Amino acid sequence: MALSTRFTETFGVQHPIVCGGMTRVGTPELIAAVANAGALGFMPAHNYPAPEDLVKEIAKIRDLTDQPFGVNFTILPSRNPPPWEELMRATVESGVTAVETAGQNPEPYLPIFQGAGAKVLHKCTSVRHSLKAERIGVDAVSIDGFEAAGHPGEDDTPGLVVIPALADKIGIPFIASGGFADGRGLAAALSLGASGISMGTRFMCTVEAPIHQNVKNQIVANDERSTNLIFRQLRNTGRYAKNGVTDEIVRILNEGGTFEDVAHLASGDQGAIVLQTGDLEAGVWCAGQTQGLIFDIPTVAVVIDRIVAEAETAIDRMVALRR
Amino acid sequence: MALSTRFTETFGVQHPIVCGGMTRVGTPELIAAVANAGALGFMPAHNYPAPEDLVKEIAKIRDLTDQPFGVNFTILPSRNPPPWEELMRATVESGVTAVETAGQNPEPYLPIFQGAGAKVLHKCTSVRHSLKAERIGVDAVSIDGFEAAGHPGEDDTPGLVVIPALADKIGIPFIASGGFADGRGLAAALSLGASGISMGTRFMCTVEAPIHQNVKNQIVANDERSTNLIFRQLRNTGRYAKNGVTDEIVRILNEGGTFEDVAHLASGDQGAIVLQTGDLEAGVWCAGQTQGLIFDIPTVAVVIDRIVAEAETAIDRMVALRR
Repeated sequence: MALSTRFTETFGVQHPIVCGGMTRVGTPELIAAVANAGALGFMPAHNYPAPEDLVKEIAKIRDLTDQPFGVNFTILPSRNPPPWEELMRATVESGVTAVETAGQNPEPYLPIFQGAGAKVLHKCTSVRHSLKAERIGVDAVSIDGFEAAGHPGEDDTPGLVVIPALADKIGIPFIASGGFADGRGLAAALSLGASGISMGTRFMCTVEAPIHQNVKNQIVANDERSTNLIFRQLRNTGRYAKNGVTDEIVRILNEGGTFEDVAHLASGDQGAIVLQTGDLEAGVWCAGQTQGLIFDIPTVAVVIDRIVAEAETAIDRMVALRR
Repeated sequence: MALSTRFTETFGVQHPIVCGGMTRVGTPELIAAVANAGALGFMPAHNYPAPEDLVKEIAKIRDLTDQPFGVNFTILPSRNPPPWEELMRATVESGVTAVETAGQNPEPYLPIFQGAGAKVLHKCTSVRHSLKAERIGVDAVSIDGFEAAGHPGEDDTPGLVVIPALADKIGIPFIASGGFADGRGLAAALSLGASGISMGTRFMCTVEAPIHQNVKNQIVANDERSTNLIFRQLRNTGRYAKNGVTDEIVRILNEGGTFEDVAHLASGDQGAIVLQTGDLEAGVWCAGQTQGLIFDIPTVAVVIDRIVAEAETAIDRMVALRR
């Protein structure tokens, strides 16, 4: 079973399902498993900030799969940025044909990618930024709804609204992220006008995800209310798993605290400790509202096959409602 | 064309589409138009708090349609509440076969309704409250996502997440509200496991809605970002149209103000002035994020027919994706 969309055609993959770039989680093993299951995974370049390391990790993926896969470039303001252009050139020279860009306008980098024949999927959190991305010439957009973990933007427009609003205005294919973990969601996204879905939390909760079993078990135990929005007050909203640390960040900022007051709680190193050691209170870790839709820890192949089958079932069910 | 669901079967209507109870907007003319178009509208009892007036308004609807319609009972804390039980008895004695309850646990009133053969649709904003409603014996639930105008609750779980999360756990039929204004949304709701949709803003923006043309025009002009969440800080969140008044309420409460500081801005009388006079800055008025999906002011019949046709098209489009 399969569903062909403008997204699958543009990126040359079997299923309209993406594993978005996940810091520390999107390792070669996970991305290759996604590729072998017929979906499209993006390995974050910033996990391997030295170009020679990135090239090695890309080679690892290629050892594990002959299917298409991608590299994610999340370009955030940084005092000590990785050598982005070198990483980009190394990526396309390694033969990677798909990239996911995020964090800033990718216009300066499009020639590097598209000149080498790679397709560019740009992440946005609003209709207006998606239309801007279309104008500068990206190949497709991935729009985050308010549901999305990580950085859902400041507009607070969920997928039910922002997907059809974008579909009304955009010409290039787009996929949607945030709130998707099963085939009912894929069918909903297609109904609303998207050409596929991108998922994060669902892929964290798989056999192949390189994170501690405690984290996977907690995602299964959690429900749709088990997230916190942090840094709202700073207009740099992040959706993370609800725990003592994110509760505390929310409390301090609600009481008028500044970024400096909470920076020690939000460090990426502490988040890494959660994923490595399974100490769920060691820091801020990323998981979305789809925790309420995740009940098991299967292989990536099972996740993908099940989503496609569930979407087909949802379509069959709707056809049967006709009279 | 039509789509049969457990909702249409339970409530004996043609289409799985509800016009939820809207203060001042859900007049007999609008509710009858919804009924004549094959959907189910609920006239708010609190618009006519004297039982003899409510009976007269119900009779007006019956003069205008021979199709099923309902009455909404939104029971909020009040110093001077309407005579709820009298209104309920008057409703069922008038032969009304569907009621929408909201605001508090409807358990004490179920015998009045169900003893007279009326079906009860209870509005909830979370999975847990929906399951409670099922346990006490309501016939169906209408779940509000974060997108919903009016009172979307405090959980901030959009429909993409809360609809399938509820579908996994509930046995009775349920419909979904918030973020729905067209047939793509209806198909998405059905994909996610709901048996229909409830809409408000879309019905405000129809020929028959008894509100000033300026309000309808502004809904068309607005987009998905044109709402404000007020009273968040008081844990009594309301989603209303973005204007100078709701901006000011948000500002005052963000700066530590209390309900007393903003009560004069949020009065229902001022909201009524907006709807009557079209002075869009006269007070707080209700419209949801679906403003980004509304581009015209058709008749109710056109809205309903178009939604069903669009949903059919969305289903056809998905069937065509199969390979």
